[in-house]
Amino acid sequence: MTQNSIRFLTIGRLAVLAVAIFAISTQVIAQDGWTLDARSVPPPAAVSKELHDAIAGAPKPDAATQWGMIPDNDDGWRAMQNATAMMPLDPMAEQFGVSVEKKVIAGVTVFAITPKEPSTAHADHVFLHVHGGGYVLGGGNGSATEAIMAAGTIGMTSISVDYRMPPDHPFPAAVNDTVTVYKHLLKSHDANAIVIGGTSAGGGLAMAAVHRFKELSLDVPGAIYAGTPWADLTKTGDTLFTNEGLDRVLVSYDGLLDAAAKLYADGTDLKDPLLSPVYGDFAGFPPTYFVTGTRDMFLSDTVRTHRKMRAAGVIVDLNVYEGMSHAEYLMVAASPESRDMFTGLGAFLKQHLP
Amino acid sequence: MTQNSIRFLTIGRLAVLAVAIFAISTQVIAQDGWTLDARSVPPPAAVSKELHDAIAGAPKPDAATQWGMIPDNDDGWRAMQNATAMMPLDPMAEQFGVSVEKKVIAGVTVFAITPKEPSTAHADHVFLHVHGGGYVLGGGNGSATEAIMAAGTIGMTSISVDYRMPPDHPFPAAVNDTVTVYKHLLKSHDANAIVIGGTSAGGGLAMAAVHRFKELSLDVPGAIYAGTPWADLTKTGDTLFTNEGLDRVLVSYDGLLDAAAKLYADGTDLKDPLLSPVYGDFAGFPPTYFVTGTRDMFLSDTVRTHRKMRAAGVIVDLNVYEGMSHAEYLMVAASPESRDMFTGLGAFLKQHLP
Repeated sequence: MTQNSIRFLTIGRLAVLAVAIFAISTQVIAQDGWTLDARSVPPPAAVSKELHDAIAGAPKPDAATQWGMIPDNDDGWRAMQNATAMMPLDPMAEQFGVSVEKKVIAGVTVFAITPKEPSTAHADHVFLHVHGGGYVLGGGNGSATEAIMAAGTIGMTSISVDYRMPPDHPFPAAVNDTVTVYKHLLKSHDANAIVIGGTSAGGGLAMAAVHRFKELSLDVPGAIYAGTPWADLTKTGDTLFTNEGLDRVLVSYDGLLDAAAKLYADGTDLKDPLLSPVYGDFAGFPPTYFVTGTRDMFLSDTVRTHRKMRAAGVIVDLNVYEGMSHAEYLMVAASPESRDMFTGLGAFLKQHLP
Repeated sequence: MTQNSIRFLTIGRLAVLAVAIFAISTQVIAQDGWTLDARSVPPPAAVSKELHDAIAGAPKPDAATQWGMIPDNDDGWRAMQNATAMMPLDPMAEQFGVSVEKKVIAGVTVFAITPKEPSTAHADHVFLHVHGGGYVLGGGNGSATEAIMAAGTIGMTSISVDYRMPPDHPFPAAVNDTVTVYKHLLKSHDANAIVIGGTSAGGGLAMAAVHRFKELSLDVPGAIYAGTPWADLTKTGDTLFTNEGLDRVLVSYDGLLDAAAKLYADGTDLKDPLLSPVYGDFAGFPPTYFVTGTRDMFLSDTVRTHRKMRAAGVIVDLNVYEGMSHAEYLMVAASPESRDMFTGLGAFLKQHLP
C-alpha cells in the first residue's frame, strides 16, 4: 500500500473509533469471545493508603489456593461452618461501640446489636441485617460482624439474622427465616422504619426477601441496602469473567460460587427470583442503596440490578469504589472507603426513612 | 500435613475470605502488582441483542491495529482532523428528527440543533454540548453527532461547540471556546436553564469548564452530563489497567490517550483541574449525571469523580451499563442501552432544571 492509502485507512479507522458513529452496520460473526493476553496490573493508585497497602501486600489471587478445598460432602460443609461460627465478637463490638446480644425470635437465632451512642435520627429505625458468605458460610457469630459495623457507624439498632443454611437447611430456609424475623419486627415497627440489607449473599437475600414480602402481601420495608449483591446465581454477569483473577476475594466463579449456588438451591431453578432476585419484578421496591467496586466480580450483578430497579421506577443510589474487590469495605474495615460506605448508607437512610 | 490440619488451614482461609473480618493485619510487602494469566472472555450475555451482536461481531481489541498509526507530526494530526470533520450529518439529523445549522458565535464555530418535536418540559432549556475525541479528534461535523442524538431523543435545543484543537490550538483553547459560548448563552438563558456536557474528552471538558466558570465568578449551569468523562489525563485510574485490551474502543492507554494528553496539554501540568477536572474542588457544582460501562477504561475516572462530587455535597447520579466499553452508547446508537441512556439523562434534567 502507498503511504497515502495507509493514511486513508488509518483515518477511516480512527473516525470509526474516536467519533460518535451513526449506524455502524457490523457484519456479525458469532464468536466465543476474545482471548486476552497475560498482563501486569499494578495496585490501584487512586485509593486510600489503607486500601492500597492491603492490596499491594496481598498475594496474587489464586482460585486453587483460596478455593481449591471446597468441601465435597456435607460433613465438610458443617465443619467449615462450625469453625467460622465461633469467631470472637467482643473486640469488634468494643471498637464500634455497640453491645451484642444473641436471642431467638420465633425459633430463629438473631444477634441484637445496640449502639452505645445511637443517632437520634434513627431512634425509630431498625436495620434488619442478613449476612454474606454465599448462603453456605458466615453464620453463627460471623453473621453479626457487618451489622456491628453498621450499627456502630450509623448509630442504628440492628438485628442480624443467623439464618439456617445448607447442607441441612437449603433454600428456602434462609428466605423463610428472614420473613419470620421481619414479621416479628413489624409488631413493633412501621414497615417503612425498617431497612433490610447485607453484603454479597446478604444483599441478594435482602432483595429476594422483599420479593417474598410482596408475594405474602406484607408491606415492604423503607429501604434496602444491597452491598455488592449476589443477585444472579447463574454464571451470567460479565464481570464474573472480566474481573476473574483480579477480584482478590471471589477470585473465580469456579470456586465458592459454583459450589455454593448448587448446595443452596438444592435443585430449584437458579433463575427463581427468590434465589436470583435480578430476575424478579421490582415494582414497588423501596429506595435501594447499591455498593460495589471496579475490581468486584459482582460489579455486573450490582449494576444490572440497579438498572432493572431504575427501569421499574425505584429510587436507587449506585456507589462504585475505585480498585475495590468484592466486599473489601468489610475486609479492610479500617480504610476510609469502609467508613465512607457506612456513613453514606446512613445519610441515604436518613433521607429516605420517615 | 494431616487431613485435619489441611482442613483447619482451609477453614481459616475461608473464614478470612468469606466473612466480614475485623482488623486484618496484613504484612505489607511492596509489590509492582499481579501478572494476570491470559484468559478467554465471552461477549457479555446480559445485554441487549443489539449490543451483544456488535461486541460478538467485533474483532478482538488490538492497540497496534487500532491506534498504532497515531501521527507523530502536526501535519498528520491536521490531516486526520480534516478527514473526520467532513462526515455527513443529514442522515443522522433525519433519523433523530432535528435540524442542524452551523453558526459562528463570537468567533467560535458551533452547531445549533433544533428538535422538530421539542419537549415542552425543556422549552426554556438548552444543552451546551462539547464533543469527545481526546481533545484532538471529533471536530468539525463530528462535533455535532452526540448533540443530534441528545437533542432528538430528549427534545431539547442543543448548541455543540466545535472548539479549536491542537496542534494549532492546544489547551486552554478548548476551555476558552466553551467559556465564550457559555457567556453568549447567558445573555438569553438563566444559568440554571443550561446543561453542559458530553462524552469522553467532552465529559472532562464540561467539568473543566465549570471549574473555569467558578474561577471567573460566572453562575454555574443547572446540570452537567458527564458521559464516561476523561477526568484524569494522567495514567492513574485502575481500569486503565484492568480493562486494557477488553475495552474495544480505547483498547490501551498507550494509544490515542497518551498521545492526545501530551498534544493537548502542551506542557501544562496534567493535574491542572482544567485539564484533569477530578483534581479540582467540586464545591458548588450542579447536579451531575454520570455514565460508564463495566468494560470501560474510564470506569475509574467516572467513579472517582462521582465519589469526589458526593463528598463535596453535589447531587450525582451514576449509571453503569453492563458489558459496555467506552462510549459504546454512541457507537451502537440503535441499541436499547443507547436510547435508555439519553432518556435517562432527559429524565434527570427534567427533575433538576427549573
